[in-house]
Amino acid sequence: MNYGIIRRTIGWILLFEAIFFLVPAITATVYWEREFFSILISMGICAIVGGLLVIGKPKSDAVYAKEGFVIVALSWIVLSLFGALPFVISGAMPSYIDALFETVSGFTTTGASVLSGEQVEALPKCLLMWRSFTHWVGGMGVLVFILAFLPLCGGGQNINLLRAESPGPTVSKLVPKMRSTAGILYLIYTVLTLLQFVLLVFDMPAFDALNTAFATAGTGGFTVKADGFAGYSPYAQVVVTVFMILFSINFASFFFIVRGKFKEAFNTEVRVFLTIVVVAITLVSVNLCLAPTPDLSTGEAIRHSAFSVASIISTTGFSTVDFNTWPSFSKTILVMTMFVGACAGSTGGGIKVSRFVILFKGMSHETKRMLHPKQVKKILVDNRVVEEETVRGIHSYLIAYAVVFVLSLLVVSLDGYDLTTNFTAIAATINNIGPGLEAVGPAGNFGFFSWWTKLVLVFDMLAGRLEIFPMLLLLLPATWRK
Amino acid sequence: MNYGIIRRTIGWILLFEAIFFLVPAITATVYWEREFFSILISMGICAIVGGLLVIGKPKSDAVYAKEGFVIVALSWIVLSLFGALPFVISGAMPSYIDALFETVSGFTTTGASVLSGEQVEALPKCLLMWRSFTHWVGGMGVLVFILAFLPLCGGGQNINLLRAESPGPTVSKLVPKMRSTAGILYLIYTVLTLLQFVLLVFDMPAFDALNTAFATAGTGGFTVKADGFAGYSPYAQVVVTVFMILFSINFASFFFIVRGKFKEAFNTEVRVFLTIVVVAITLVSVNLCLAPTPDLSTGEAIRHSAFSVASIISTTGFSTVDFNTWPSFSKTILVMTMFVGACAGSTGGGIKVSRFVILFKGMSHETKRMLHPKQVKKILVDNRVVEEETVRGIHSYLIAYAVVFVLSLLVVSLDGYDLTTNFTAIAATINNIGPGLEAVGPAGNFGFFSWWTKLVLVFDMLAGRLEIFPMLLLLLPATWRK
Repeated sequence: MNYGIIRRTIGWILLFEAIFFLVPAITATVYWEREFFSILISMGICAIVGGLLVIGKPKSDAVYAKEGFVIVALSWIVLSLFGALPFVISGAMPSYIDALFETVSGFTTTGASVLSGEQVEALPKCLLMWRSFTHWVGGMGVLVFILAFLPLCGGGQNINLLRAESPGPTVSKLVPKMRSTAGILYLIYTVLTLLQFVLLVFDMPAFDALNTAFATAGTGGFTVKADGFAGYSPYAQVVVTVFMILFSINFASFFFIVRGKFKEAFNTEVRVFLTIVVVAITLVSVNLCLAPTPDLSTGEAIRHSAFSVASIISTTGFSTVDFNTWPSFSKTILVMTMFVGACAGSTGGGIKVSRFVILFKGMSHETKRMLHPKQVKKILVDNRVVEEETVRGIHSYLIAYAVVFVLSLLVVSLDGYDLTTNFTAIAATINNIGPGLEAVGPAGNFGFFSWWTKLVLVFDMLAGRLEIFPMLLLLLPATWRK
Repeated sequence: MNYGIIRRTIGWILLFEAIFFLVPAITATVYWEREFFSILISMGICAIVGGLLVIGKPKSDAVYAKEGFVIVALSWIVLSLFGALPFVISGAMPSYIDALFETVSGFTTTGASVLSGEQVEALPKCLLMWRSFTHWVGGMGVLVFILAFLPLCGGGQNINLLRAESPGPTVSKLVPKMRSTAGILYLIYTVLTLLQFVLLVFDMPAFDALNTAFATAGTGGFTVKADGFAGYSPYAQVVVTVFMILFSINFASFFFIVRGKFKEAFNTEVRVFLTIVVVAITLVSVNLCLAPTPDLSTGEAIRHSAFSVASIISTTGFSTVDFNTWPSFSKTILVMTMFVGACAGSTGGGIKVSRFVILFKGMSHETKRMLHPKQVKKILVDNRVVEEETVRGIHSYLIAYAVVFVLSLLVVSLDGYDLTTNFTAIAATINNIGPGLEAVGPAGNFGFFSWWTKLVLVFDMLAGRLEIFPMLLLLLPATWRK
């Protein structure tokens, strides 16, 4: 294990976090808020600890798979541990575990909150901005961001970091150089965020528009209002619906669209994803129109179902209505889309559409083999052969995912709440969505859970965002053995 | 597709069903019940239709994988369709769909009922006996039974039938001849059933003891009392607990024990299964002792938790208490054991312990490969290499299982009941257990569901018993194409 490079990378992460704190610091200056000093202190702590850690060049700059996983997991943990400081120092959230939950929920773009709507609205603007900005930073990945600016480790080994941090079963380069790929991805991300801000700023205060743009871009879910998105205009709700879907699509698609390569842009995963979105919205709309409660017009039913489906499948977690009061069929569809998640290579969470595409192709492949045992063919997606290794990787991912899910469920059930609350609390955190159903539904929050449940959910949010293995390997003694 | 052999096998199945009807017919004679005539009519119908179908030798007696799946799926469907006749003809269950649900629940050893406890107790004894006897027939498998008596198809091809009907990822022969293996398995089955009957008959009426022995042996779950197993003595409850666990163990283990091969008998699967049982009972007992409700003594807590855990993990579904009123943690453990299920090669359902053993070994294998990409080793269970094909087969099974589960959940949710009811109703049927939680808990039944939900659950029970693929392939156009 190359401890030197791990230390140095963590150091750089903290130095970057000190820079990230500029965003809430500026907000505090603009609105003349006294929490400015809490942010300044947090900034100082990050700068000092980070500065001490980057001193001294490591003996080797080799980052193998093992180091890749450990660096990514530790980076996200350290980022969250220090990111929680302003909440505690300012006194806005006296419990450090609550502050940590909120920060992890921010960076992992979950958007689950321990605060009630009223408590959120009571937060100073600079801390609201910090919450939203953690979404934006976490959405594309912290290390991707740093890689775009800094040559951290030796040539070609960045792929081990990117692989551990990027969502989806495979990582492909858009251009030969990994650094340039990271740069392009961040450029697309920034342009789309700005575009959404511009479309929203006509309809709501600039502060709200910027927060919403950050939270949508990262498919996060934190809002600055007590009633989430219910109070904004239908125009704003439609804009956000569209952008939640856009940010769930593989960013490479936008790159291909700009280059005029539409066939590559609308690959199987994107087509399947859009189909699921349309089918889910249709089914929920029809169910809402036919159900006696809630009493909605057809237009309202379509708007709310489109918003909710887009919010859940993109793993954002905004809400315009309390879908916990919807009929069972609609709730079941929403719970299912929780697990489907977004496209690989987007900022969305969940299991990812491309994994399901490969799983289904694999199953139909096996079924054919059962009927005709002598025919052996390869699994093809977009006319490319899916390697056995990729399929095996997806299977291991799903097993690890299920193990974390089940163990979490067991611990969380010790709190004694009902099964739907427990199940959807974990589904909403491990898939980085935000709200679940019942007590953790859009009208509720995660504040009532015990501290150990909150820590389990913190682990689940990180495990979900990093696709399980980095967090799991961190706990494995074998990782730390020579 | 060899239609001739399919027709002829179905014919034999019906002739055997006519013989099976002797059991309730004799019961009706003993208790002088007028439902005797309904059973006689059902018997006649089976004999005539079966007789017509077996006439004429098929051109070929080849049974390939494809025919194996189709024969097994159709056999079970036809057996259930005709097995439901006495309930309808006698007027005991006026709705044919309800009667079909009850019969499928019987043959698949699910034990889920559309009848309330009072309705069950009001049934004539001959029909109660028929319900319990379907468990016994379905437990070991109908085709295994027939294979033990009848040379249906050409040499060596019986394995394709046995493979499609037997639970678990692999099928191994105990002795060189498949027919002899089937015979040995049925012998073990009969001896254990008789042993349980003898142990019970001192403590309860012979009728109850026989029904209980049939239902326990098949890990079914139908009882003859309104309150299930709550009314029997602690002695009877303990005997049933032990036998539920015995019938969840691979029958090959008993064969090895008789031969003195204890190492083969207590293989990894059996050891893991027994460990899970002990851990689950311990956790539930502690949880029940510490929880304010239900108010149980330590002895009661251990007895009820042992009974419930054994009942659920063996997929029997008997109950001594309404575990739906237990604390969340205990209910979560019970729901988890629903999916674990019994050992392969037993009469129990669920996903099977051996599949989990292979999955976990596979995952730890992949994790090691992530840390050290250049080391490639084989997966070993009981010092034997697990073939890639077996692992792939388990993965396909799980994906198919999840697909059936999710689609069922979607349809069932249209009935509008709460998510826990819907989820556990499917978990309890696809894993062939019986009771779930909430409305389908031990105190409830499945009668309130709509007819389409009942049909979906009928499909799930059959799919669960036949391990998904036979039922799934039946629906696939590719199966029927040349």
